[in-house]
Amino acid sequence: MNFSSKILEDAVNEMSQLPGVGKRTALRFVLHLMRQPEQQTDQLSTALTRMRHDLKFCKKCHNVSDGDLCEICSSPKRDETIVCVVEDIRDVMAIENTSQYRGLYHVLGGKISPMDGIGPQDLKVRSLVERIKKDGVQEIIFALSPTIEGDTTNFYIFKQLEGIDIRTSTIARGIAVGDELEFADEVTLGRSIAQRVPYESSIKN
Amino acid sequence: MNFSSKILEDAVNEMSQLPGVGKRTALRFVLHLMRQPEQQTDQLSTALTRMRHDLKFCKKCHNVSDGDLCEICSSPKRDETIVCVVEDIRDVMAIENTSQYRGLYHVLGGKISPMDGIGPQDLKVRSLVERIKKDGVQEIIFALSPTIEGDTTNFYIFKQLEGIDIRTSTIARGIAVGDELEFADEVTLGRSIAQRVPYESSIKN
Ligand SMILES: [Zn+2]
Ligand SMILES: [Zn+2]
Repeated sequence: MNFSSKILEDAVNEMSQLPGVGKRTALRFVLHLMRQPEQQTDQLSTALTRMRHDLKFCKKCHNVSDGDLCEICSSPKRDETIVCVVEDIRDVMAIENTSQYRGLYHVLGGKISPMDGIGPQDLKVRSLVERIKKDGVQEIIFALSPTIEGDTTNFYIFKQLEGIDIRTSTIARGIAVGDELEFADEVTLGRSIAQRVPYESSIKN
Repeated sequence: MNFSSKILEDAVNEMSQLPGVGKRTALRFVLHLMRQPEQQTDQLSTALTRMRHDLKFCKKCHNVSDGDLCEICSSPKRDETIVCVVEDIRDVMAIENTSQYRGLYHVLGGKISPMDGIGPQDLKVRSLVERIKKDGVQEIIFALSPTIEGDTTNFYIFKQLEGIDIRTSTIARGIAVGDELEFADEVTLGRSIAQRVPYESSIKN
């Protein structure tokens, strides 16, 4: 592309670093910003810089947070005896949107995937086990995507919990096997939380 | 969406102001930035702010420019006697990419569209006519999209040029009628510039 402006070219190049954004889409974005008041671009830039520098991760559950503990972990209204294990902070948002769950979370930061070179040591598994021992957690809900990687991760964590007196369950397989959890509709996802089954019975099927 | 972080929510909300970007895509963008080095977000923010505040429009052709005159208007290699009239700066880029054209441009900033409330007074038509009179322009190429609005705009400008001794042509209709110029492939677009026809003969068909 020939831009006749280095300033425009820089903006397009930076925008096109975003996932799934080509040069043409990036150009559409920046030309849109040029037509809006300057304030809009300033707010966007400030919000992104602030996000990248000031956003934290909760010391307890690894969810995104503005402080040391996230809003969920620091709320007195949540049931601290239940922990729902998820892959990603998007899964926390998805489950929160169902309004079906009042316990806490634990964000693993991924799932075991030998193909992608992701092993248990790359996930927040150790901090989960420590948390269970220390905080008097009584139930763990596995809410990973029902894929081979999700099942492998569930099973790995289940084995780590051997000897600890705790109930384990998985979300009901109302979600089609092979689908990504974050794209499930709220009703299906809410139901799959409410109808969770003991983990041991889920691996027998 | 429930974000458990105001900082994250602000970034997602600002990103979702971009055209065609919903909350879910905006979230994907910001989580991607979180996984990249801080420098990438800083460069993006800086490039956008700089673009919005420092990008200028060429005083002669209204193309984007880093200075008072754009790179094309200030180049001694370009033929100043030919002016190619386009809707949008994206059309300048598209034609430059064909390497078929060595004249100058005039960016109208849109096309006449009564449906959208865009009349001739909203476009850079007067500055085109003044430029033709003052700069000794000998030929005008209409390179607007071959749509009803494009044809209307061509015809309006053609009427404004009555009494001025100038050749007018339109790009060859190698581009399918009804298509947007900016999405044309380079070969078709290059050929349509090379095979331009006198404007008068184009309106007889
Ligand atoms: Zn937390
Ligand atoms: Zn110019």
